[in-house]
Amino acid sequence: MYVNSCALCSPTSNTLLWQDDFCRVVLLNDVDYPAYCRVELLAHVQEMTDLLPLQRARMMKTVFAVELALREIFNPDKINLASLGNKTPHMHWHVIPRFENDRHFPNSHWGEAMRDGEPTAHDQEVIKAPVNIEALAEKINAHIQCALNSPAD
Amino acid sequence: MYVNSCALCSPTSNTLLWQDDFCRVVLLNDVDYPAYCRVELLAHVQEMTDLLPLQRARMMKTVFAVELALREIFNPDKINLASLGNKTPHMHWHVIPRFENDRHFPNSHWGEAMRDGEPTAHDQEVIKAPVNIEALAEKINAHIQCALNSPAD
Repeated sequence: MYVNSCALCSPTSNTLLWQDDFCRVVLLNDVDYPAYCRVELLAHVQEMTDLLPLQRARMMKTVFAVELALREIFNPDKINLASLGNKTPHMHWHVIPRFENDRHFPNSHWGEAMRDGEPTAHDQEVIKAPVNIEALAEKINAHIQCALNSPAD
Repeated sequence: MYVNSCALCSPTSNTLLWQDDFCRVVLLNDVDYPAYCRVELLAHVQEMTDLLPLQRARMMKTVFAVELALREIFNPDKINLASLGNKTPHMHWHVIPRFENDRHFPNSHWGEAMRDGEPTAHDQEVIKAPVNIEALAEKINAHIQCALNSPAD
C-alpha cells in the first residue's frame, strides 16, 4: 500500500545505508545525534501487530542488526530503540546511540535538553566526528545478512 | 545477575499483570496514561543485543502480545513502543496506547505536553476510565501463551 501524503512512502531523502524488498535503513544526519539511524518498513503499515509474526521477527532482526553495528562502531553508553509513529503512522524504528554527554542524556532525546549544543571535547571526539558512511553501511549489511540467514529467531 | 541499586531488580511496586521465569508485565498506573504497560526482563541485562537471538525473540513476542491485548481492549489511535533505559539500564519495554486527545499527542509522552491534564469528555470515556485489571491480565496471558507456543517467529 502506498499513501501519497506519507513521507515514508516515498524514496528516502536521508542517507540510505541498506535496503531490501521489505525495509530500508537510513542515517538521519541529525546534528545532535550523528549516528542516529532509522529502520523503515517499505509498506505503509501502522503497527507491528498489523504485520504477520514472521514479518515482525524480520523487522526486529534488522533493528537488532543495526543496533549491533552501531554498538561496535560507536561504543555508546546506551542504545535507545523506539517505534512511535504518532506523526507518521508508517512503521519505522528509531535506533539511537546515546552518550552520557549528549544533549538530552539521561532523558529521551524527545525530552528536555540537559545541556546546550556546544560539543565538549569528549563529544567532539566520540559523537560529533563525521560518520564513516561506508564503514557503517558495510557493518550493517554484514549483521543483517547474518541475522536474516540464521535459523534461530 | 542482581544489582542492588537497580529498581527493576527487585519485586515490582507496580500492578503485576503477568510473569514467568524470563520477564514480567506490569501496569504503571500512570495518571495520564492509565493503560501504560511495561515489559521487564527479570535478569539485569542492558541491551537487547546482550541477549541471545532466541531471548530477543521471546522478549519481543511478549511485547507484541501486550500490544495486541491493549489494542483489543482500548482501541488506541497509535501504539508507542520504546526501550530506552538511560536512567535504569535494565532491559524493559514501554508499551503505551496513545490517543489523539491524550496529554502529549502527537508528541512522544516524554516530549512537550500539547494540552493540560484536564480530561475531555472523550478522555474520560476512553482513556481515563479505570482499567479492568483482571480483563487486561487475562487477555495478555492469552496472547502471550499463544505467541510463546507458536512455532512461527
